[in-house]
Amino acid sequence: MEQPTPEQLTGLTDLDPEGLRAALLAAVDVLVEELARIESRAVFPAIEPGSLVPLFPKAPPEAPESLAAILADHRALVEPNATQWQHPGFLAYFPTSASSVGIVGELLMTALGQNTMLWRTSPIGTELEQVVVGWLRDAFGLPGSFDGFLTDTASTSSLIAIAAAREAAGMDVARRGLAGRPELGRPRLYASEEAHSSIEKAAMTLGIGRDNVVRVPVDRELRMNVGALEAAIAADAAAGHRPIAVVATLGTTSSTSVDPVAAIGDVAARHGLWLHVDAAYAGAAALLPERRADFRGWERADSIVVNPHKWLFSPIDASLLLTRRMDQLRAAFSLVPEYLRTLDREGAVRDVNEYTPQLGRRFRALKLWVLLRWFGLEGLRRRIRHHLELATTLAGWVDADPAFERLAPVPFSTVCLRYAPPGPAGETTDEREARLDALNQHLIDAVNRTGEVFLSHTRLDGRFAIRVAIGQVRTEARHVERAWALLQHEAAILG
Amino acid sequence: MEQPTPEQLTGLTDLDPEGLRAALLAAVDVLVEELARIESRAVFPAIEPGSLVPLFPKAPPEAPESLAAILADHRALVEPNATQWQHPGFLAYFPTSASSVGIVGELLMTALGQNTMLWRTSPIGTELEQVVVGWLRDAFGLPGSFDGFLTDTASTSSLIAIAAAREAAGMDVARRGLAGRPELGRPRLYASEEAHSSIEKAAMTLGIGRDNVVRVPVDRELRMNVGALEAAIAADAAAGHRPIAVVATLGTTSSTSVDPVAAIGDVAARHGLWLHVDAAYAGAAALLPERRADFRGWERADSIVVNPHKWLFSPIDASLLLTRRMDQLRAAFSLVPEYLRTLDREGAVRDVNEYTPQLGRRFRALKLWVLLRWFGLEGLRRRIRHHLELATTLAGWVDADPAFERLAPVPFSTVCLRYAPPGPAGETTDEREARLDALNQHLIDAVNRTGEVFLSHTRLDGRFAIRVAIGQVRTEARHVERAWALLQHEAAILG
Repeated sequence: MEQPTPEQLTGLTDLDPEGLRAALLAAVDVLVEELARIESRAVFPAIEPGSLVPLFPKAPPEAPESLAAILADHRALVEPNATQWQHPGFLAYFPTSASSVGIVGELLMTALGQNTMLWRTSPIGTELEQVVVGWLRDAFGLPGSFDGFLTDTASTSSLIAIAAAREAAGMDVARRGLAGRPELGRPRLYASEEAHSSIEKAAMTLGIGRDNVVRVPVDRELRMNVGALEAAIAADAAAGHRPIAVVATLGTTSSTSVDPVAAIGDVAARHGLWLHVDAAYAGAAALLPERRADFRGWERADSIVVNPHKWLFSPIDASLLLTRRMDQLRAAFSLVPEYLRTLDREGAVRDVNEYTPQLGRRFRALKLWVLLRWFGLEGLRRRIRHHLELATTLAGWVDADPAFERLAPVPFSTVCLRYAPPGPAGETTDEREARLDALNQHLIDAVNRTGEVFLSHTRLDGRFAIRVAIGQVRTEARHVERAWALLQHEAAILG
Repeated sequence: MEQPTPEQLTGLTDLDPEGLRAALLAAVDVLVEELARIESRAVFPAIEPGSLVPLFPKAPPEAPESLAAILADHRALVEPNATQWQHPGFLAYFPTSASSVGIVGELLMTALGQNTMLWRTSPIGTELEQVVVGWLRDAFGLPGSFDGFLTDTASTSSLIAIAAAREAAGMDVARRGLAGRPELGRPRLYASEEAHSSIEKAAMTLGIGRDNVVRVPVDRELRMNVGALEAAIAADAAAGHRPIAVVATLGTTSSTSVDPVAAIGDVAARHGLWLHVDAAYAGAAALLPERRADFRGWERADSIVVNPHKWLFSPIDASLLLTRRMDQLRAAFSLVPEYLRTLDREGAVRDVNEYTPQLGRRFRALKLWVLLRWFGLEGLRRRIRHHLELATTLAGWVDADPAFERLAPVPFSTVCLRYAPPGPAGETTDEREARLDALNQHLIDAVNRTGEVFLSHTRLDGRFAIRVAIGQVRTEARHVERAWALLQHEAAILG
């Protein structure tokens, strides 16, 4: 490639378009090569914390450097020290795929450089977002009464929903705050013991406090116990607290368990509580008509979050917040200083920043529009079905191996398991659990150290559980087979 | 380009690397062409709200579409209906530049697809962020006692700072919340009348409430009146309220005025309040040693926000939060569920999600690392100095034209002005102000309708003010000259 000249680099403006083209082509060479050799990389690199900072100069560069030098360092210092989220053996957490088309969409979005805070600052950003939100809502089988927008992460989407619940409860928190108002009582949220930490984090951020998130017990299949929910609400009301919202999770983070959302919706309706549905990961499965049973009742939610950057193959970040209560979101976040006031506002213009804690917003709808057209719903469904099949197959292998235990049902594409060889005669239950916890910690560590796959863990009913989460767009049957072979092989070595 | 085959599109995984290359090259062609012709586009497109949604199909596509078809629609439907933030005539709000190198950096970051929530999920993402944060801190002339990280926007950075201030005040809000605790009093924040709306928005989100943000009066140069601050704190303390934080703005959004941060720091220290400095836009000027006088005293802040996506030419989003109180940020946001617990944590590993309301995080440090090396500090300084000079020149023209008034000092690169021709004999002050407000609304509308430049407005001391904000990396002297010529020309037509 032709290098930009020093004059271009230190000039007063930017590269000309041909200079930009040359720079982008050089970057494309690097990233294509990177993805082509990704399976030769360890998914989790074998490095020690603190070992990377010393590889970089302490002082920022005074003089401009050539792109060639920067890209060479990217190859030498950055790429090998990344956890390879784009590796097909990435089976940890919930995968986030930078699918090829997702990369294309992000690139177009970056170059267009929109801030979609106001209609006026991005008419296409605002209106294409409405189009894409409608497409996804319809594709999930949800009614037209749901409107919404895109945020960065499920944490933000759920925070917005709970902030709106405060306003819907008539607390007027946005204006008056929560402190020094004894008439309010303590606002209380209800979520299962298996709900994601983002719900507690939202409570911390919103001034509600972790202590006011009631963790409702779950049944043996790790689903919220609706009777316990009802009892918790009644106890709080009796204590003078102020129940405001229930969070139902469809696809929990630990085991992808599915709360009974229809029954939870009945309770929420009876008590006048906001129902928020966290389907950040599993919502993608609602694209499949044959999988809609798990979602029955979510159409009565006040708000729903589904993350395209989880199982819809969008690069991070993209979270979809759907709601039937846009007015309450606006009550929680609208603020229009003079410098953001536009003449358009006299019409029915949507300025999305009035619904969000952030002002600046990226044009995420563009990448989702590109992605939805490229894959088509057919292409997305085909891939999601494939992941569901891979998980079912893996679950079958686990069940068939007497040395392993499956620790949770597999409603979607994540399998929770542990190695559970027999112990010494006379071992108590506590002794057995302690032995298996230690053994499985060693096992996951051994498997991850091979670099061929990357697994994460959780605890289910107190037990250390290894999670195999299938959802990377590049994952094929052979990677899941390899993960299982490595688990068996390393387990045998551990004895 | 070679089109991906239908089989690739509807297969079970993703394009192979050569397919990705072909797709990216097609996208590069589109965006390079887009930037090459950007000056032929209206900066703000002449379209009506609601006119874009009908251009797109109501139903999402079932079958995959070709990239060629998607890119053709991008050219036809997306690009012409965008507000052209990358146009060199974009002089509205504060510009956000998708500089060429910024686009390269975002592209590398997208392909690497990191979620930097934990050290383990991205060792390089976590440690390169420490490197880049240190580089920027040092480049701004701030002491090594400042640590920090990157967030999406200044709204989030300031929200985090204020949440930390709640904890630093010993309120234990993250755990216990703000409600039902009469001993706390009302938490109060202090910010000038000219402070950004994000401070009030943070108060709304955090459960503090807008009513508890005390808007301190400003002097004639739109800087916080420190005596009034002191009086407001005293009055609140006497009323049993709980002062927690003061926000000083270095470069306000309306006029880029500069609060006297050293004097404000004295007041904050005397009352034991958290000092947060909002330098989201103007902080970039601290790269210039000769401009450090305006920042004197900010080194005593508890937290500082500077946005690289404003005047450091990074594509949206990238906001830098610096703080001397990482422990308090952690107290506000740390939450470690089992599925995020890693063995690394026994060492000194930083898991950045413990300091933020969001869990998922992009690898923004990568694009800033690429950008800082490409421009070098020299290259950044040269461009910022150029913008400062352009603003000084424009301010001189305004001052020299008796038909125009400059409405605020020009400490940085934004000029606030109005057209102020003489009125009829015997016009009262109120009549004059009303006439000039209406006239300038017509003027900005006429100028923006030319499509050659895009300006925004504000109100200063009640008066409608036109803002010319210089900061787009592609803006040259000729664009500022053109903006001034258009203002004069359209003003003459209005009479």
